Order: sequence, then C-alpha cells, then structure tokens
Amino acid sequence: MRKAIVSIVTICLLLPISITAQSISKKELKEKVRQYRIEHEHEIIKELVDFLSIPNNADDQPNIRRNAELIKSMMEKRGITAQVMETGGSPLVYGELTVPGAARTIMFYAHFDGQAVDPSKWIDQEAFTPILRPGKMEAGETGPEPIPFPKTGERYQDDWRIYARSASDDKSPITALLTAMDALKSIGVPLGSNVRFIFEGEEEASSPNLMSFAENNPDLFNAEVLYICDGPMYYSNQPTLKYGARGIVTINITVYGPNTNVHSGHFGNWAPNPGFKLARLLTSMRDEDGYVLVDGFYDTVTPLSDREKQALADIPPYDEELKELYGFLQSEGSGKSLMELINRPSLNIRGLESAWVGSQARTVIPSEATAAIDIRLVKGNEPADMVEKVKRHVRRQGFYIVSDDPDRETRMNYANIVKITGDGGYPASRTSMDLPISLLTIEALTGYHDDDVVLVPTSGGSVPLYIFTKYMDLPTISVPIVNHDNNQHQPNENLRIGHYWQGIETFAAILTYVK
Amino acid sequence: MRKAIVSIVTICLLLPISITAQSISKKELKEKVRQYRIEHEHEIIKELVDFLSIPNNADDQPNIRRNAELIKSMMEKRGITAQVMETGGSPLVYGELTVPGAARTIMFYAHFDGQAVDPSKWIDQEAFTPILRPGKMEAGETGPEPIPFPKTGERYQDDWRIYARSASDDKSPITALLTAMDALKSIGVPLGSNVRFIFEGEEEASSPNLMSFAENNPDLFNAEVLYICDGPMYYSNQPTLKYGARGIVTINITVYGPNTNVHSGHFGNWAPNPGFKLARLLTSMRDEDGYVLVDGFYDTVTPLSDREKQALADIPPYDEELKELYGFLQSEGSGKSLMELINRPSLNIRGLESAWVGSQARTVIPSEATAAIDIRLVKGNEPADMVEKVKRHVRRQGFYIVSDDPDRETRMNYANIVKITGDGGYPASRTSMDLPISLLTIEALTGYHDDDVVLVPTSGGSVPLYIFTKYMDLPTISVPIVNHDNNQHQPNENLRIGHYWQGIETFAAILTYVK
Repeated sequence: MRKAIVSIVTICLLLPISITAQSISKKELKEKVRQYRIEHEHEIIKELVDFLSIPNNADDQPNIRRNAELIKSMMEKRGITAQVMETGGSPLVYGELTVPGAARTIMFYAHFDGQAVDPSKWIDQEAFTPILRPGKMEAGETGPEPIPFPKTGERYQDDWRIYARSASDDKSPITALLTAMDALKSIGVPLGSNVRFIFEGEEEASSPNLMSFAENNPDLFNAEVLYICDGPMYYSNQPTLKYGARGIVTINITVYGPNTNVHSGHFGNWAPNPGFKLARLLTSMRDEDGYVLVDGFYDTVTPLSDREKQALADIPPYDEELKELYGFLQSEGSGKSLMELINRPSLNIRGLESAWVGSQARTVIPSEATAAIDIRLVKGNEPADMVEKVKRHVRRQGFYIVSDDPDRETRMNYANIVKITGDGGYPASRTSMDLPISLLTIEALTGYHDDDVVLVPTSGGSVPLYIFTKYMDLPTISVPIVNHDNNQHQPNENLRIGHYWQGIETFAAILTYVK
Repeated sequence: MRKAIVSIVTICLLLPISITAQSISKKELKEKVRQYRIEHEHEIIKELVDFLSIPNNADDQPNIRRNAELIKSMMEKRGITAQVMETGGSPLVYGELTVPGAARTIMFYAHFDGQAVDPSKWIDQEAFTPILRPGKMEAGETGPEPIPFPKTGERYQDDWRIYARSASDDKSPITALLTAMDALKSIGVPLGSNVRFIFEGEEEASSPNLMSFAENNPDLFNAEVLYICDGPMYYSNQPTLKYGARGIVTINITVYGPNTNVHSGHFGNWAPNPGFKLARLLTSMRDEDGYVLVDGFYDTVTPLSDREKQALADIPPYDEELKELYGFLQSEGSGKSLMELINRPSLNIRGLESAWVGSQARTVIPSEATAAIDIRLVKGNEPADMVEKVKRHVRRQGFYIVSDDPDRETRMNYANIVKITGDGGYPASRTSMDLPISLLTIEALTGYHDDDVVLVPTSGGSVPLYIFTKYMDLPTISVPIVNHDNNQHQPNENLRIGHYWQGIETFAAILTYVK
C-alpha cells in the first residue's frame, strides 16, 4: 500500500481542492465516533434489529412498503428530507440533506429488499427474527448457541454476530450510515458535502425499474458520486473501495443428435452423439488454463490504468486461503491472481444437461445436449459483441446456428446444428481511480483505520452499475462494510458486530472528509 | 444372398447329415402351413389375445404366475411335458418334447413378462385389453380407429395390428411357435428334432435369476442350439437370423471443481471449471467420426469370419431410411454402414449433468460435472478390461482416479480428480455361422420365404446370451419374427398380423428341417 498512498498524495497536491484543510484529525474523528458508538451500542443495535424484523422479500409488497416507511422515518429523524417514491414495482426511498456551504453533492445507494427465504433451510431460527450468536455459523450447519441481546449499558463483543435475512445484504449499511450521521452530530463535526440517498426495494429481483426511474427523475441523481453500500469487504477484512463491477451475458448452447433419444445398442457408433459434439465445441473455446480461444475475446477490454495496476498489485493475495476454503489445488489463469483475473472477461460453463445420469440413466444416444454459459464482462466489452464473437467461433467449428429447435429440413441439410439463445445481458462498469472524487474517497480512508485500504478496480459479482455510469454519467464507488463470510443469499445470513462498528466509522470518515 | 447360398450348399454337402432328404418340399410345407393358418385364424388369434389379457409386469407376481400356468396348459395341449419351475424370482416354464428317432435336440427361449406399463401414456386403450387397429399407430399418437376382431370364419388382413403390452415383446413368439406345432401335426409333418422350451418370467427385469437357474439345472440345457425368439426382424422385414448380441458395461465419470458451487462472478476465470475439464476428457476419447482413441479399445475384438463378412455385405442397407426417420444428415463411422459398425465396440455418452441449465440455471461454477457412459461390447471384449483401458486413458490425460467423492486431502493433492464407477457389465456373444447347427438353420429358411434371409452376426441391443454361450457351451441363434416398428418398450406396443403369420411359417420350417 505504501507506494499507492505516496502517489495519491502526490497527485492530490495538484488538485484544486485542499484535502489537508480538515477541521478534525482522522485519529480524533475515529476515537470520537467510536466513543459515541460505545455509549450507544444498545440503541444502535436495537434500530438495526427492528429494521431486520420486517420481512423484505421483494414479492411481499405490504412488508416492502413497511420497510420503506420505516426508512423514511429513520431518515427524517436525522433531518433528511425523505420520501417514498413509486417506481412501477417496489417503491424506493429517496432523501436529501443540504449542508450550508458545501461545494459537492455525494449520494449513497443501498437496498432494503432481501434474497428470498426458504424457511426450511434456516437452522434453529426464523429469518426475520434476528438472533445473536457468539460466533460464526456455517450455512446449513448448527453453530454456537444463541445468546440474549445485551441489556442497556452492557457491551457487545466484536466477534458476535446478528443472524437474520439482510443482516448483511443489505440493511445494515443503511443503519450504519444513519448512525454515522448521529455520531457526527453528537460530536459536532459538520458533513463535508450535501448528501443524497436512494434506497431501493427490488435489487434482489434484478432492479427491474431502477433504470426507468432514473431516466424519469434525472435531477435526483445530480451528484458527483454514487456510493454503493452493498456487498462484502475484501477477504482480508481490510477497508475496501470497489470502483466497478463485471457485466454479464448468458447464453445457452444446444447441440443436436437424432430427433429422439435412440437405443445406444442399436445405434451406438452410428447415430451422431450430441454429447461428444458439445464436448468438442466447448473444448475448442478455452485452453486448459482457462484462457479463452474465441477470436477477439479480449480485444475490447479497456486496459487498466497505472493506478489500477498498482492497486491490483497492492491487494494482499488471498488466493491460497480461498483454495483451502473451496478445496482445490490448482486455479485457472496460469498462476495469475484471482483479483487480476477478475479484470478479464470470463467464459464459464454454469450447467450441462443431456438425457440422464445416475440412477435415472438410460442406455440411449440422447437427442440433444445443452451447456448453459455465462460470460462475465469487463469494461470495454459489449454484451452483444461478445456473444457475436462466440457465435463466429462456433461457426468456424463447423456448426450451423439456429435460434429455435431445428425443423426437419434444417436437420437434413446440416450435419452439425447448434441452437444459441441468450438474455441480452449488460455491460461492466469501472469508475476511474484518477477522478478527483475517487482520490478524495481514497484519501478519506487512508490512515484512518489501522489497516491499509484495499482498492479493487472491478469486483467479481455483476451489478448493473452501468445504469449510472454509462447512462447518467454518475461515477460509482462501492463502500462495502460487511464481513465476506456473511452467508449472503443463503440461510443463516449474518453480520459480524465488529464489522458493523467499523462500517459506522467508515461512513463517518467519508461524510466528513469528502468535501 | 446368392453367393452365400451357394457356399452354404457347398459346405452342407460335406456334412454327415443329409439336408436334401426332406420328406416335404419347402414350397409344399409353406403352402400347407399357410392353409392351416387361414382355416384357423380365429382360434389362433384368440389364443394370443387371451394370453395378452393377463398382465405381465415382472413385479406383479400373482399375474406372472397366471401367465406361467396358462403357458404350461398351452404346452400340455400340444403334448409337451411342461412344468412351472422356481428360480428364486419369477417362475419360468420349462418343457420337453421327445421325437422318436430324432438325432438332435433344439431348444427355444422366449419370455412372458413385459416392460413396465405407464397407463397414462397409452393412447385410447389399456395395455392389457388387446385391440385391433387397421394399421400403424406411432407411439404417443392417435392412430387409425380400432376395429372389432373378426368373427369365426372372417379373415384378417396382413396390415392390421394387435395393440397390447407384449404383443411383440415377447408373448407372440410363444404362441406362434405352438401354433406352428399345431400346423405340422395337422398336416402330418413330423418334427425334425427333440424340442425343449424355456419361457422366462423376468427378462425385462434383467434376468436376475436365469444364470443361477441354469447353473443349478445344467441338464435342462442339454441341447445343440438355443433359439432366442425375441426382438424384431431386420428393418427390411426380410426373414432374419441373428447370431449374437452386443455386451455392455456402463461407467459414470465425475470431474470435480470447487467443493461447492461458487459464484461465477467472484471466481470465474480462476476457480477450476469441471464442465470444461469433463469436455476436454470426453473429447480426448473419440475423434469426430466416433472412432475411439482409447488405446487398445479395438485390440481384443474377435475378427469376423469370412462368412460373417459376407453376411454383413449381403444385408440390404437401411441407413438412409433410418437417417430420415431420426432426422440427421450424417452418421458417425466414416461412412461405414450401421450393421458393420455394430460389430465394433462403441463408447457412448448417454447423459451429462452439471449444476443446472434452462430456467433453473444459476451463475455458478459447478462443483462437479458428470458423464454417464455406456460401452457396447462385441465378441472378444471383456467388460473389466475395457473399463481398465478407459481408466488408463483417463490417467494419461492427467487425471487422478478415485472411486468415491474425493476427501479434503485428495482434493489438495491432485489438480485433476475424476471419480469412475461402473456396473460390471457383461460380455457380448456371437455364435459362429460355420457351426453345423448354424448352417442347418440358415438352410431351413433359405428358399422358403419369398425374401432372402438376412444373417446378422451381432445385433445391436445387449442381451446376456453369454450365460448360455460362454458358461453353458450352448450356441444361441435369434429367430425374430415381429415387425421392427412395434413400439417395443413403449406405449401402444403392437404386432403386425402379417408378421405373425410369417412367424408361424418360420417356426414350422425350423421345426421341420433342422434335423
């Protein structure tokens, strides 16, 4: 990290704004915010627990609206002008806080809906009755016995965890942000910028109305940056800023054999086997190290800047721990690190199917074989262009491409037929680390926490940040605060208390120093 | 066929038995058997229909026993000494008929149990209530309207079909054989040999007790040939003799990625993808024409004899019709014919599975990918040896083979792990066409029907004939009589009347001339 910090400071000296004219030192700010939190642990957790107690499946509109109303009242309690707004689907909550004399406007995004719950999979608890356990519980396993929530005046321990749907994804960032505002108000530190808030109610349903809402309300998004408060911190639990997210496009590839499953004894060696055809086609697409052999697959990648390269080089590797966690000896990518490889587009077989295996298997030559593929995109890749490149590759392997199951005439005209269908997808997004607001955000956290800040050019998961960056010219920076081992999207989702405390401190620094 | 007939005649002249000393010419025999049938159509069909009316799923023991008792009484009606015998599973019916002065003993096999019935799939009828339709009905489609069975004295048309479970597979050969004996008795033609019969009650359940029964009762199988009366005639509907059947061994190949499905965004390009590993492994096993690249795969094949080669060359090709039927342009095997390729071992992907495809697909790197494989064997191939060759090939591709899911230590020690499990399988069988009994059987049918006899060295479907040929030194020859388009194992199974009539004539010729 040291090299990165030096270069950031150097560049910042050239910027028109003064990042040294801070009215409170980072050490002092952090200590005072921490002291505020220690004195208010009971009420801080109570606000979060009450919030987590309202079910938040995006399909459950009455409860989604109860969540929205609660957020509105929590915001108004902090002096934020807030309103519940309609999107055509779930409502969202929008808010503004104008700071006298502020030169900038920053905006925070989070979502209050949660991944669907399968109650039968939640061990020893209900998803919307938050409980406290003195440690980690793996998904689907029994964990340490629950303990009662401490009474007023009693302290929480950092390793304790709150278990409930959306404890991490993504309600806690909302209350941590509001708590940070409470702390700053209590200790008399002014906000550095005007602040806007947008809290969405259908992110887990793929944000079907967010783009049209933004198009219909462009003024609401008139800000210099959108801080995405979602997702986990880097594996090392260092403070993390993420500047982008992969895009994605999915395709299904179906290869055909005979027009019905036929007897493998009567026709084996003679009727064309679609499984082998599919295997050959897939094998032609990548080498053994995962390097994609589709012509031009990497051509449109926007190269990383020097700062992004340096940031990548500075990220402490976590690859060996992840290999241990997921139980494999050798990763793909010819020895390159996970974080580096995330900045390349990927071609992934996410599913295979042909006839039956196991106890259902029958001695047939299957009539077809299908591979479900996802292509993760990085900045510069256009979904349609990437799919077209794959199609061109498929044609070069001698296949005739159709978009529906082939009819009799097609079948009798082409020896190798493949159906390719897809979902359209969306592109990646990557905010430049060289923007003034990027540097300001880095600087706000540099030297504030004990650990160096991890700067991630592109995070692995796909999020449609392009809605903001590409169509609204609003750069996004993700500020994740929750533990990576939070069982996100799984049963027994949880939030580590120590991470929550640190998240409050992180938001306090951004609210203070980004000005 | 002409060349084959000439050579058979040449060889037969050298044999100790005289095949020319027949008391009745083929033309006369056929005409008299036909006349008998025409005069008895009503009672012939009634006996079959009554037989088909008794349900015969191998699981349905009370009805299986009713079938066995009926067969016993039908046999006794013909003077056969018959008994229902226990096997440990379904009973079988064994019978003997001693012919004064006969030099040989021939034996017939058929089975009276049927493939399981799904009543919801049978269109416009119940499986065990035989009906008559004036033509062909495809599986799962409505067909020509049923017609009443003709009254006594009314004639049947050849293209009419009886629809019921086991109409073809495999009750009709039993009644056709017994009817042939009636005809011969009626016209005063003596049987050429002593005759034994074995009718099995659990063939569709994979004959779990047949081998132990044979081992415990070797004397019952003291015959020169076992005629297997099962399966369809060759596609061209010419009279058919089959001298063997493929063996089979199945294996499942599972390749491993991470120890759980992981997020393809967070880990795509880095976590090893088992789908691509499996595709590469499968692709290494065969070339694009289906030629198996596993070292030594074809080494143990017993070469075809000159007579077998000639028989193959004489089979009228039906490949183009089958391509049309099954809707594909190009077969595997570099242009070789289906019948030729059946005499090679095959390596077939019968199923693929990894995570999910279609609407269930998720953006994961799957934890594993599985291929279900069947290897069809021909004479000379030993199942265990063939599997070992595949394993050797897999190891050469850099895989470490396990027989259970790998434990943590194995996972961290080997980059490429594959689990291979199998079912043991059984070998192929091929009776030499040069045996005296083989030649006698060919001669019995040569010049008897209007069409040439098709001689099939190996039929495609696997049948455990090795129980007889390998362990009991009892050559088998299949004498199929039913139409190939009989919806075998499917709903609306049927028997074409014209085939049934011809089958009666075929058995009459064998019973007369094999002596």
